[in-house]
Amino acid sequence: MINEINFIIEIDKAKEIFRKNININSRRNENDAEHSWHLALMAIVLGKYAKPETDINKVIKLVLIHDLVEIYAGDVYCYDEKNNIGKFERENISADKLFSILDKEDGQKMKELWLEFEKCETKEAEFANVLDRLQPFILHTATEGIVWKENAISKGQVLKRLNIALNYSEEIRDFILQKIDVHIKNNSLLP
Amino acid sequence: MINEINFIIEIDKAKEIFRKNININSRRNENDAEHSWHLALMAIVLGKYAKPETDINKVIKLVLIHDLVEIYAGDVYCYDEKNNIGKFERENISADKLFSILDKEDGQKMKELWLEFEKCETKEAEFANVLDRLQPFILHTATEGIVWKENAISKGQVLKRLNIALNYSEEIRDFILQKIDVHIKNNSLLP
Repeated sequence: MINEINFIIEIDKAKEIFRKNININSRRNENDAEHSWHLALMAIVLGKYAKPETDINKVIKLVLIHDLVEIYAGDVYCYDEKNNIGKFERENISADKLFSILDKEDGQKMKELWLEFEKCETKEAEFANVLDRLQPFILHTATEGIVWKENAISKGQVLKRLNIALNYSEEIRDFILQKIDVHIKNNSLLP
Repeated sequence: MINEINFIIEIDKAKEIFRKNININSRRNENDAEHSWHLALMAIVLGKYAKPETDINKVIKLVLIHDLVEIYAGDVYCYDEKNNIGKFERENISADKLFSILDKEDGQKMKELWLEFEKCETKEAEFANVLDRLQPFILHTATEGIVWKENAISKGQVLKRLNIALNYSEEIRDFILQKIDVHIKNNSLLP
């Protein structure tokens, strides 16, 4: 059991990887553990809007694990084009380092889950990625878009970032477009 | 989708419910979102030590949800006997308030999951409760038991608190007892 305990201790570091987004109530930066937990809860309550035959239990695992690689690779702001270059390669090295703490077979399973999320080729990875775009969007809408405003983000950038969510379902698309209109009106998003 | 979005926004508050325990790296107090995420990861990597026919996907859901009621009821230190009186009743009221944000059927499902964890009568709830005892224990062992020391906690109190984990499996029992011996030696736990 020692390898699992060491892994559990190591991933505690995800609680100190802070993202660009802020939490709704404290307005402090969100960390990866909080973000991943929020996504998992979203998978549970929004599961009924997933495409037919999407295994929500698998989606939950994907979102719980997807940002663990940032423990060594760090978080990069999605609109920071320069620092997003080489992100996959850095995270891939991080994944191998982190998951090798576990027994070989368990580590391989973790790596496969992480890769599944990244490649986004299965129904589960698609829905997990939709949630991963939608969650920060919800935080922004509930905090008057102040992070967008501070970073002079435009509607075009947000639409591009949310592309996978916009194309996923009509309900999600309507929600996003309606909220974006509010932000344009309130000048928290550049037109 | 509006009820689900409102629920997702409301549960953001769990990120600001701080526990008595501290995280390993920052040594700041852990919050409920971080704690629940850590438990879910533990369910994945320690799942192989669960009793046969334990549905780990169900365990993951139980641990992700189990502390949501603290959004209104607050966190009570497990060794604070006085403030643990009436805890279930307060949390039950909190559960009804929180889960009523969701569509009726979804809210009922959430309430059932929370009650399943609390009643601890199923294999899944038993393992979820074992993880909920084991996770703070791991944090304490990795932070030289300073929170135990500050609160003058005794070996007897910890053994009582960890009773369900001690009785769950030999591997978990051995891990706990071995670590407790170290803490006694280091004077971070009263004998």
